[in-house]
Amino acid sequence: MKLSARNQFQGTVTKITEGQAMAEVTVKVGTLEFVAAITEGSVKSMGLKVNDSVLVAVKATEVMIGK
Amino acid sequence: MKLSARNQFQGTVTKITEGQAMAEVTVKVGTLEFVAAITEGSVKSMGLKVNDSVLVAVKATEVMIGK
Amino acid sequence: MKLSARNQFQGTVTKITEGQAMAEVTVKVGTLEFVAAITEGSVKSMGLKVNDSVLVAVKATEVMIGK
Amino acid sequence: MKLSARNQFQGTVTKITEGQAMAEVTVKVGTLEFVAAITEGSVKSMGLKVNDSVLVAVKATEVMIGK
Amino acid sequence: MKLSARNQFQGTVTKITEGQAMAEVTVKVGTLEFVAAITEGSVKSMGLKVNDSVLVAVKATEVMIGK
Amino acid sequence: MKLSARNQFQGTVTKITEGQAMAEVTVKVGTLEFVAAITEGSVKSMGLKVNDSVLVAVKATEVMIGK
Repeated sequence: MKLSARNQFQGTVTKITEGQAMAEVTVKVGTLEFVAAITEGSVKSMGLKVNDSVLVAVKATEVMIGK
Repeated sequence: MKLSARNQFQGTVTKITEGQAMAEVTVKVGTLEFVAAITEGSVKSMGLKVNDSVLVAVKATEVMIGK
Repeated sequence: MKLSARNQFQGTVTKITEGQAMAEVTVKVGTLEFVAAITEGSVKSMGLKVNDSVLVAVKATEVMIGK
Repeated sequence: MKLSARNQFQGTVTKITEGQAMAEVTVKVGTLEFVAAITEGSVKSMGLKVNDSVLVAVKATEVMIGK
Repeated sequence: MKLSARNQFQGTVTKITEGQAMAEVTVKVGTLEFVAAITEGSVKSMGLKVNDSVLVAVKATEVMIGK
Repeated sequence: MKLSARNQFQGTVTKITEGQAMAEVTVKVGTLEFVAAITEGSVKSMGLKVNDSVLVAVKATEVMIGK
């Protein structure tokens, strides 16, 4: 499946911090580190765990530029 | 200034596609390519142009994971 | 691939309005109609056209409730 | 009041999972199930509870397409 | 109707810049100026025009902090 | 640094509600009160505390209009 998200990178989960409603997932993409805040329900239903190979996807409309 | 955005990467603008209300800005970060959809007004007020050194910032809540 | 987005629905593209930087895509999901604003670049690279079967995906953090 | 959100659907709250800062609200819209991650403060101030009739609203810019 | 958005302010439309797919709407709230990028379709269907009294609504998950 | 966010306001932190993965930060901007849901990790790494002078930044694409 192709996604419309213009920012898509393949990486590896390095850390998962679980909360009651939300969880924080850290993903290493080459030398960069991404952090995703997703629902705890998604972590459970995807069976997400450290070392999983995952895709990081971000819509272009969510990207801010600083100069 | 420190930003709360958990995803912050330094890169270089490689392309700007301008529209009437929105513009699309491509930023190279190492070997990765980010695309930001920002308002045409931001491109103008920041004086954004190709080869500018910029920061790409994305909130953790905007990051989706695929597995 | 499983996506972390908690809102995922299968539908059919019924209309595409193209602009210079952004495009508007209408998707029929059963009796509901969704509208997505994605970059014109995504419409092109995905080869999106009317009658395509597509997935609509929205992160839980993007959903507002009114009562 | 009319909202600019292009995705607006009427439904019924079927589940609320409360956390310290965030809560997860599930809303049934016909045969579809939506999940919203909103602040715990919103759940409290709106007095949201199971069986409430609610509106689900999502901006077009937040909708991703997969094909 | 009460909205779950934690940021809601009453203001007046001062400017509308229309594009093909997206439009930019400027709203004055007291001494502050907000800018919203909404679809051109929303501007049309709401009949939005300068001097309209409007509500500006932003989810807490969309707010970034800088320090 | 200039940010592309079209909504940027200077304010003062008046309250921080911490959770396991997410935190809620209230910021007073003149007579308005903004609420930001950011990761607990951001609160920690920025050393955010009540009375801090901060910037509130929101992308135009995240602003909804009601009329």
